[in-house]
Amino acid sequence: MADRVRITGARITPVAFVDPPLLNTVGVHQPYALRAIIRLDTDAGVTGLGETYADTAHLARLEAAAEAIVGQDVFALNTIRASISEKLGGDRTGDSTGLAGMITSASVVDRVFSPFEVACLDVQGRVAGRPVSDLLGGAVRDAVPFSAYLFYKWAAHPGTEPDGWGQALHPDEIVAQARRIIDEYGFTAIKLKGGVLPPEEEVAAIEALHAAFPTHPLRLDPNAAWTPETSVKVATGLAGILEYLEDPTPGLEGMAEVARQAPMPLATNMCVVAFDQLAPAVAQDSVRVVLSDHHYWGGLQRSRLLAGICDTFGLGLSMHSNSHLGISLAAMVHLAAATPNLTYACDTHWPWKTEEVVEDGVLRFVDGSVPVPTGPGLGVEIDEDRLAALHEQYLRCRIRERDDTGYMRSIDPGFQALSPRW
Amino acid sequence: MADRVRITGARITPVAFVDPPLLNTVGVHQPYALRAIIRLDTDAGVTGLGETYADTAHLARLEAAAEAIVGQDVFALNTIRASISEKLGGDRTGDSTGLAGMITSASVVDRVFSPFEVACLDVQGRVAGRPVSDLLGGAVRDAVPFSAYLFYKWAAHPGTEPDGWGQALHPDEIVAQARRIIDEYGFTAIKLKGGVLPPEEEVAAIEALHAAFPTHPLRLDPNAAWTPETSVKVATGLAGILEYLEDPTPGLEGMAEVARQAPMPLATNMCVVAFDQLAPAVAQDSVRVVLSDHHYWGGLQRSRLLAGICDTFGLGLSMHSNSHLGISLAAMVHLAAATPNLTYACDTHWPWKTEEVVEDGVLRFVDGSVPVPTGPGLGVEIDEDRLAALHEQYLRCRIRERDDTGYMRSIDPGFQALSPRW
Ligand SMILES: [Mg+2]
Ligand SMILES: [Mg+2]
Repeated sequence: MADRVRITGARITPVAFVDPPLLNTVGVHQPYALRAIIRLDTDAGVTGLGETYADTAHLARLEAAAEAIVGQDVFALNTIRASISEKLGGDRTGDSTGLAGMITSASVVDRVFSPFEVACLDVQGRVAGRPVSDLLGGAVRDAVPFSAYLFYKWAAHPGTEPDGWGQALHPDEIVAQARRIIDEYGFTAIKLKGGVLPPEEEVAAIEALHAAFPTHPLRLDPNAAWTPETSVKVATGLAGILEYLEDPTPGLEGMAEVARQAPMPLATNMCVVAFDQLAPAVAQDSVRVVLSDHHYWGGLQRSRLLAGICDTFGLGLSMHSNSHLGISLAAMVHLAAATPNLTYACDTHWPWKTEEVVEDGVLRFVDGSVPVPTGPGLGVEIDEDRLAALHEQYLRCRIRERDDTGYMRSIDPGFQALSPRW
Repeated sequence: MADRVRITGARITPVAFVDPPLLNTVGVHQPYALRAIIRLDTDAGVTGLGETYADTAHLARLEAAAEAIVGQDVFALNTIRASISEKLGGDRTGDSTGLAGMITSASVVDRVFSPFEVACLDVQGRVAGRPVSDLLGGAVRDAVPFSAYLFYKWAAHPGTEPDGWGQALHPDEIVAQARRIIDEYGFTAIKLKGGVLPPEEEVAAIEALHAAFPTHPLRLDPNAAWTPETSVKVATGLAGILEYLEDPTPGLEGMAEVARQAPMPLATNMCVVAFDQLAPAVAQDSVRVVLSDHHYWGGLQRSRLLAGICDTFGLGLSMHSNSHLGISLAAMVHLAAATPNLTYACDTHWPWKTEEVVEDGVLRFVDGSVPVPTGPGLGVEIDEDRLAALHEQYLRCRIRERDDTGYMRSIDPGFQALSPRW
């Protein structure tokens, strides 16, 4: 048989990239978003790439995991995951990735395993001369549709120059933001991050978007800012306008209560973020759509498992995004391309990102979709200068955790992160 | 990127191998068991192997499927499955594979897709120089444990010489059968195919096995021969003795009724045989253990999906077997080795099989387990002489459907296949 391809080590590099003052219900994006870039080296001389969160606790776990898997074969994904699980023990501490939902030890393992799994698949693909999508059952679409991700935002981070996007706090400013993003990218679906303004103002923004883009499916995601009562009121008011309503209220019970009365499907990336939440969500019929995210669902293979579970239990499947760079976009595109039942346009923070660690040329948006890379592995390569620059920026920026609430409170000391808020 | 490996055609060869008169609740095994051997040829000059049922209706579907996938890449499994699904249309007709359970168009597609998927993975592994287990996440065990599969049986097919195993109709004959099989193979778990004799006689056989093999986990599978009331009575009587009770009664509702009162887990390969039966089974808590079988769960990747669903929804996982040859045994071993939560010893009809189509040397039982083949692909090779001989036997034997009931009625005209019988 062919020689094993053994892991010789992982170079884990935290990076920071500039991020606009995008608002959400827990606060505002800090001036820099953090990511960890993983270069997984092997004795075949082939290096695989991964990308994940970079808060301090997660970085420590990544380093521990990297140590645990040295010497293992990149095809031995079951064993690699078990080694990481064993290394982390029963670690159930939370992290600061800006994600909600109960942290279980299983989901901690999945979050830590994910970038290594992606990097192993990148190596497998490079060795076999095959795109990662081929290792996931093969692409069923040549390009993956994404949605325009709209945010309420300030014109600038306090004390800095305007970022070029301008303020977006009123419906007409949201429509203008949508128009600019859609003109540039061609997106055919629109998502508004809500939970920022009183619900009636966000309803007005959605109605304005519907008037301006009558054929674009629309989504609203207040990140559990509302009570069940408020959620039902908003849902009823937006009947026939929203494709789905994302996480209107906290928890499986609250979501189930809203789901029984809402005229549109409820979606989530908050109350179902780990495998052990699927059975109770199915039993209570809390949601109709799950947003997958390979960063916390344990990589691409386990995201396929999630997709299969959704298919089996009659749940729709969409894809969640945190602020991310090109390695993750490539991984998301390979996964989405190879997932037949991923029928919703995926989320991406791409339009808000002005810095990068991978080389240009492979990832591009055409009519709102990203063509699936056809080169071996993920199909993207590190730009060493860019990586070094964003690592320098990480060292300089002093941000070590994602903390939208703390940053907001440094500007507005009276701010409180409440869920539900209205 | 590497060249595509395109399918140029499939050679589908029905074979028949001699089978002893093994009894079950629907009748008795015919003198020959049928299988279809698939050799999937590619433009890379590499041929992949698959094995499946060979009743006439299934053979016709296999030929149609083979035609539909010519020209496709062996990595394009999603597309290959879609092509087969499209080719078969809404075909919901049943087949004669000796399996129970509702036939849906999805499960027909999965049954037809399965041997082609296995053959594609065999090609992928051969091209990459990797065992199939590596394409499934990597083996987590070096050898896969199987159970001793005991049958009530006659000494001979009517009108023929005794087969060497002798009659097994009384508890002491079942114990003797177990002893011989365990002496030869080393199995550490025991399954008795029941539903043949009145329940109290089968209980007596299990009690005799428990006395003779007190440390071997025991299973009893009457193939839904009992009413819920009888099932509960047997289950109660065998408390502390059975590892699990397999399909005591028909249907998800009946199983759920028994499950609420039985002291041991209920297992099934009858009421959950397709993905669309999982949600109702979970909702009703009908079973605690699902027996997977890649032949009808849509191949190895979809069997991994089933495994992940079982893990996610708190179900145990075991593995079902029909009479099979070495290609299927190799596939079962790769799958089981790469499935961490497959913690029960798997079923196999191996001891009853005296003929083969693959070369000797790779598949062997050591202490009841089959070491995972380490060669590229499945690791087994066709023995052309054996294949030709068993195909000749197929042509000669005139059996074209599995029909345990019809064969029994040719011997005992008053026999009726009743479910439940007691
Ligand atoms: Mg969300
Ligand atoms: Mg059974």
